Amino acid sequence: MAHEYTVDHELSDDDENVHHVWDNSIEPALTVEPGEVVRFECRDAFDEQFGADADLADFLNASFDPVHPVTGPVYVEGAEPGDVLEVEFLNFEHKGWGYTGFFEGERGFGLLPEEFEEGGFHVWDLEDGVAEFVNGIEVPIDCFPGIAGLAPGEDGEHGTLPPRDTGGNMDVKHMTEGSTVYFPVEAEGGLFSTADCHAAQGDGEVCVTGIEAPMFVTARFDVRTDKDIEQPQFESDHPYTPTGRDEPMYATTGIAPDLMDATKKAVRHMIDHLHEERGLTRAEAYILCSAAVDLKISEVVDQPNWTVTAYVAESLFPE
Amino acid sequence: MAHEYTVDHELSDDDENVHHVWDNSIEPALTVEPGEVVRFECRDAFDEQFGADADLADFLNASFDPVHPVTGPVYVEGAEPGDVLEVEFLNFEHKGWGYTGFFEGERGFGLLPEEFEEGGFHVWDLEDGVAEFVNGIEVPIDCFPGIAGLAPGEDGEHGTLPPRDTGGNMDVKHMTEGSTVYFPVEAEGGLFSTADCHAAQGDGEVCVTGIEAPMFVTARFDVRTDKDIEQPQFESDHPYTPTGRDEPMYATTGIAPDLMDATKKAVRHMIDHLHEERGLTRAEAYILCSAAVDLKISEVVDQPNWTVTAYVAESLFPE
Repeated sequence: MAHEYTVDHELSDDDENVHHVWDNSIEPALTVEPGEVVRFECRDAFDEQFGADADLADFLNASFDPVHPVTGPVYVEGAEPGDVLEVEFLNFEHKGWGYTGFFEGERGFGLLPEEFEEGGFHVWDLEDGVAEFVNGIEVPIDCFPGIAGLAPGEDGEHGTLPPRDTGGNMDVKHMTEGSTVYFPVEAEGGLFSTADCHAAQGDGEVCVTGIEAPMFVTARFDVRTDKDIEQPQFESDHPYTPTGRDEPMYATTGIAPDLMDATKKAVRHMIDHLHEERGLTRAEAYILCSAAVDLKISEVVDQPNWTVTAYVAESLFPE
Repeated sequence: MAHEYTVDHELSDDDENVHHVWDNSIEPALTVEPGEVVRFECRDAFDEQFGADADLADFLNASFDPVHPVTGPVYVEGAEPGDVLEVEFLNFEHKGWGYTGFFEGERGFGLLPEEFEEGGFHVWDLEDGVAEFVNGIEVPIDCFPGIAGLAPGEDGEHGTLPPRDTGGNMDVKHMTEGSTVYFPVEAEGGLFSTADCHAAQGDGEVCVTGIEAPMFVTARFDVRTDKDIEQPQFESDHPYTPTGRDEPMYATTGIAPDLMDATKKAVRHMIDHLHEERGLTRAEAYILCSAAVDLKISEVVDQPNWTVTAYVAESLFPE
């Protein structure tokens, strides 16, 4: 899927190119023509409050206020409300490290804050295509932007945490190199920004962080007037499993009359499994779930109980 | 994953081996020793009310009352409440045809009954490993039992539609040949039954039917006292994509503050896509979603909006 390209513009992660809310009145950091390629430098989600030598205490002392710094916005000539902005992700370059962490109790965020009285944190070495965890566990690297989106049409400031009709913090792990994402344009020029890059993530991102990593993102822009969409759509060819092919998985079910409860059950059962069968602490298990366990909706029609399933690949573990 | 085995017992789909509710007082159709293999004959979900020559009218005239006929129960010697019943699925043999259908409005079931004023129905030829749809679309066959479960510990009759802690109508598409499923035992002997077989299904089974097909299911039973689980868990190695490897997919997002609403949006957007870009009627698109489109929970932590994604593989379509 990798195509030849030439970078037409560079956007550094200097303050003048970084914003912390969505707002269609933010001045474009850059204006491009359709077909042009931009290389974005993106800070990590916590805006450089700590580095690769951080520990749990550093993470827990970090402030949520600057989450997220996003690079942009890019104004694409000719993109009008009602059009679709096509963004082809051409390349991702991480900087050799990333982290996954979660907060305790009240500051919990994440799917299961009530389960953890203390936070958890892991710094991953990113090398040779894999991220190193504890106990010899390796998670394959497949970089993507947690945040990719356009300024909402509605005036005013909008937080970066929730995704919206124009995208944003969608955390879709398949928006990888070679993928093409379509965004509904609500503001003139589209006003695309990206950030919050992840070196890997499980479908669900259950502890609230993927493998968070500062990164360069290279993307080509185009304007489509032949598509009519309400929320983002995309084309992608990976990764659907860690090895890129069918492979042995261990899976847990969560069965409940509420889809969120079913999701929580599936993840709780997976944490139990990883703790009991794989020797991880429950905090490590939660982190691994967020980085590499995939949530699927198996059925959402067998009234009144739905089935959500959580899958971990055997290939992550040493033989 | 296919292993050598010898069938120790056959259970036909004759009335004496078929029940229509879960109830731990139903007499076992068969008693087996751990390690033994049983070949179950399973009727289709609608209990033979119509055959391979059925049309939409036949389907809409069918009664829901006999849904589902399940074959069993099998009493496994030594399985006590608190144990885990291990069931290894060794083989599935369909009978050459299957169907997918949905009802209209009030009888709707399914994820999107309000979207369809009329029902829909398709009979699939199952041949050479693929199920034939309209427009040259082919869905790979990967058989599994929609229903596999144990009698609940709670006395009395329990409907077959919802799955429960002891399994049942879980509709997990990865419980394929070679998979091993673990069930928490609540009643003495476990009392395993299976049915509602599908020749294929998308994660979600959104229109309420997969590719429903009468089938033989061959499984080996064992009792595990070293596991402690609350709901079913399983091991499986396929199918994670239609071709068994990473491949081009088209995907839609559903972004909303309620996980069910996000799921509905993702499927609505996929139906729109299949209608507009692939020339299917909306009913055909809904059926294809149920048979072959996979729902993933991309993120469930970016408050207050969650992202659900629906994926269709390009490989289903003719070149």
